[in-house]
Amino acid sequence: MPNDFKQRALDYHERAPAGKLAIHVTKPTATQDDLSLAYSPGVAAPVRAIVADPDAAYRYTGKSNLVAVITDGTAVLGLGNVGPLASKPVMEGKAVLFKRFADIDVFDIEVNAPHPEEFINTVARIAGGFGGINLEDIAAPHCFEIEKRLSERLDIPVFHDDQHGTAIITAAGLLNALEIQGKKLEDARIVCVGAGAAGIASMRLLLRLGAHRTQIFMLDRKGVIHDQRTDLNEFKQLFSQETELRTLEEACAGADVFVGLSGPDILTPEMLRSMAPRPIVFALSNPDPEIMPELAHATRDDLVMATGRSDYPNQVNNVLGFPFIFRGALDVRARHITDEMHVAAVHALARLAREPVPQDVLDAYGTEQLEFGPRYILPTPFDPRLIDTIPAAVAQAARDSGVARI
Amino acid sequence: MPNDFKQRALDYHERAPAGKLAIHVTKPTATQDDLSLAYSPGVAAPVRAIVADPDAAYRYTGKSNLVAVITDGTAVLGLGNVGPLASKPVMEGKAVLFKRFADIDVFDIEVNAPHPEEFINTVARIAGGFGGINLEDIAAPHCFEIEKRLSERLDIPVFHDDQHGTAIITAAGLLNALEIQGKKLEDARIVCVGAGAAGIASMRLLLRLGAHRTQIFMLDRKGVIHDQRTDLNEFKQLFSQETELRTLEEACAGADVFVGLSGPDILTPEMLRSMAPRPIVFALSNPDPEIMPELAHATRDDLVMATGRSDYPNQVNNVLGFPFIFRGALDVRARHITDEMHVAAVHALARLAREPVPQDVLDAYGTEQLEFGPRYILPTPFDPRLIDTIPAAVAQAARDSGVARI
Repeated sequence: MPNDFKQRALDYHERAPAGKLAIHVTKPTATQDDLSLAYSPGVAAPVRAIVADPDAAYRYTGKSNLVAVITDGTAVLGLGNVGPLASKPVMEGKAVLFKRFADIDVFDIEVNAPHPEEFINTVARIAGGFGGINLEDIAAPHCFEIEKRLSERLDIPVFHDDQHGTAIITAAGLLNALEIQGKKLEDARIVCVGAGAAGIASMRLLLRLGAHRTQIFMLDRKGVIHDQRTDLNEFKQLFSQETELRTLEEACAGADVFVGLSGPDILTPEMLRSMAPRPIVFALSNPDPEIMPELAHATRDDLVMATGRSDYPNQVNNVLGFPFIFRGALDVRARHITDEMHVAAVHALARLAREPVPQDVLDAYGTEQLEFGPRYILPTPFDPRLIDTIPAAVAQAARDSGVARI
Repeated sequence: MPNDFKQRALDYHERAPAGKLAIHVTKPTATQDDLSLAYSPGVAAPVRAIVADPDAAYRYTGKSNLVAVITDGTAVLGLGNVGPLASKPVMEGKAVLFKRFADIDVFDIEVNAPHPEEFINTVARIAGGFGGINLEDIAAPHCFEIEKRLSERLDIPVFHDDQHGTAIITAAGLLNALEIQGKKLEDARIVCVGAGAAGIASMRLLLRLGAHRTQIFMLDRKGVIHDQRTDLNEFKQLFSQETELRTLEEACAGADVFVGLSGPDILTPEMLRSMAPRPIVFALSNPDPEIMPELAHATRDDLVMATGRSDYPNQVNNVLGFPFIFRGALDVRARHITDEMHVAAVHALARLAREPVPQDVLDAYGTEQLEFGPRYILPTPFDPRLIDTIPAAVAQAARDSGVARI
């Protein structure tokens, strides 16, 4: 990070009031009478209503618009296990994005719990007052167990953004990239480097969308995940293949799609050259992608490429997902976030990118044309049509899958 | 509660946005550049700073102004054990008061933990991101253990308002009532009915301020707490007396001070008549006091009286305490709230009530004169001098007792 940018970031956070969030009281508090409604004795009325019917908490408290962004600080951005306290600026940043893009209120909660069991119990015990739980920056493989157990235990949506958020945006972009390249997901040979939270979830979602299990080659630090390996956790085993392929070089030869969720510069020009005609490269390691776009495009002129960076076209940015997915879930007071809701978000995002971009969106982004094609496969984060379309699609899927309260 | 007031309270809470709190983003978020400072990649700078020095969290995050209001829902207002979810309107109301009176941001957390051990562990695990913990509406005797253990375990202030908030306001009012009646705390014979969180804490604070242990007679549901009883928890044992007195009637005869933290109408005119000349009655049961002020004043014309109600003079209202005590503690990034800070708050509050009330405060309260005397022994909640004086006194006491970080 350049020093002047680093200093600007520190100044941004330190300028009074410190941090990025404050509480805003939404009801009148000027008079004694106001306070007698907000607190004792008037507050007894909503308390009694909730005792009589727990769902009344959605009517009389902030629960209906309140998400907890919760981490244990074990896998924070690209920084690793920084611990709960040091992860607070990131969680507050997530809260900023929730508010900015979907008007959702967030309490950030950093949990000091070294063991998954303690983390699960802690989150379950504080969850009742929230309308949803966004798990964040929890290391694999614990994150899978944590999300699964909490989803089963709680009757509010639990969403691990590093898994499903990334998976949803990746899948939406990939559907559109395949369309542009004239390929079908059902036929595509896919190489995924990185078998952590995002990689596993992305490939699971692609399976659900129609990809063939035998066409997905997943790699971890030790290379291709194959059926002779004995070191695989249950999540990696889902992608274990009977194959002769062992290295990334071998896996890339003839592949249609490369998805990188690992680290910088691991995709070499030689590997890229060996991929099938009209290849797709999602080099999502951030800030340093698996191959830099300049090099990739210089190597293959029939390429469609995406990264995690905002300074190149086709940014796979989770902010396209989580605010709108939770908005849809909260709007129907969903009990869970189902696979159907994930899929609905994928298709709504992919569809939006194929639609003509209104002039006001173009104006907001300056002069550059945004037209469905190799350099525009995903909506841009400030597109106001996102809030109009994605939550409605997710809410409908919630109703269709029977998890909506209203 | 009258039906129209109940309906107004429900409407107040239900009117969109539901509840009383929202998140306000305090930093710019209009542009991609803004978001690159608030979130990735800029946010890595404060993360690294906090990894290097945990106290940097006070500079770069909301921790410096953030209090968790936490309950298990076991003793909510006068409503009893309503459970965590139904207590949420009350906790949000507390957040409103923190913000309204001391500009402190609050996350309300309702913990579903039937056993104190689980509650303590849950709170301890989520505490790191906060600058302080306000425990609320937790039943005695668990509340004593919970507060003690959390105070020892955490390096941020832990304050159980139902104990210490009530104790501080009660003590401040009582010091002034004694002054008006020409009595000294050291000589006063005190009867306290109610040996729960507030009663125990109030009497402990009076001991610290100079009251004599043998002059305090505490009563629970079974009557006077005396040294022949075998049913006393360790907190009640602190006030066990060698005495012949058994009933409230017997205890009141000749007493200088009656403090009621129990239930309606238990102090009869006969008992009040039997008290010493120039008696003091704090009938703090709310909304129905131990004796109604009209009846008390009709019985004794040499009385100084306080209640918990806003529609009578001399309201013992916790809002005079907790916002300003936490403001002072946060301002010096205190590690704990010490007894010295409690005492400093008592004296600062008592002192403020003895000072002439500025015209603008009088104007805000209408035409009634506020002058130190039997009908004005405590400041009124909207007095703007509170925020100017109480936090400074508490902060100084924090420095003097060595718990201030800055």
